Amino acid sequence: MDRDFLLHPQLLADTAMVCDLGLSRVLLMDDAHWPWLILVPRRRQLRELIDLDREERIVLGDEIELASRILRARFNPDKLNVAALGNQVEQLHVHVIARHRNDPAWPAPVWGRLPRRSYEPSARQSLLDGLALAFATAA
Amino acid sequence: MDRDFLLHPQLLADTAMVCDLGLSRVLLMDDAHWPWLILVPRRRQLRELIDLDREERIVLGDEIELASRILRARFNPDKLNVAALGNQVEQLHVHVIARHRNDPAWPAPVWGRLPRRSYEPSARQSLLDGLALAFATAA
Repeated sequence: MDRDFLLHPQLLADTAMVCDLGLSRVLLMDDAHWPWLILVPRRRQLRELIDLDREERIVLGDEIELASRILRARFNPDKLNVAALGNQVEQLHVHVIARHRNDPAWPAPVWGRLPRRSYEPSARQSLLDGLALAFATAA
Repeated sequence: MDRDFLLHPQLLADTAMVCDLGLSRVLLMDDAHWPWLILVPRRRQLRELIDLDREERIVLGDEIELASRILRARFNPDKLNVAALGNQVEQLHVHVIARHRNDPAWPAPVWGRLPRRSYEPSARQSLLDGLALAFATAA
């Protein structure tokens, strides 16, 4: 981890922080259409998964698995979508999204389908608290 | 690996086989718009990354890394896209796609953007031979 890790401004603008895990910062995408977490390894200058060394990649895999299990336990999705794209935001980040057959993009991927719709603030805080507790309990 | 592993019919229809790695079958998406590999762990009944046990997930990570490095060496992409979605094809499969700033979907994800355009057969064979050689040399 880099002490001077900085989150990309676009991620900062679109998300709320859930917690820090061993490697990654866990963010909640502030889009009420989908339960959507983003994991950002807290190191500078990473763009691709293959920029991680093998040990870090394994840790990131563990953290993706934890995020997936927490989303599954809370939202009972029909499918999880896990993706490292980064065509628009160059800082390495991994999407972990809970998808349902009745969500507004199904079965298409979520990116670029609908304008982001922020959570109502108290609902967002409640969700953030619940997620932070789940990560703290499991990690 | 399951001896009776069967590829999903949609993957069979849309791809050509490159090779088998330790865990995954490597497929070339038969879409000349993008250099696009798909890794399918050769086990039955997998839908999610979290259906893999940890050892298998680490092996899959190694194989994704190898596929990424081979695409990068051959196509010099501006970005790699790595994703396990599976909203339409329920068999666990991982996309590894070489993206360029001048490709026809950039910066959007590739899924659902354009009708698939098959390679010209001799170009496809040449690409398959080159990729198979690269995997055989590296693995």
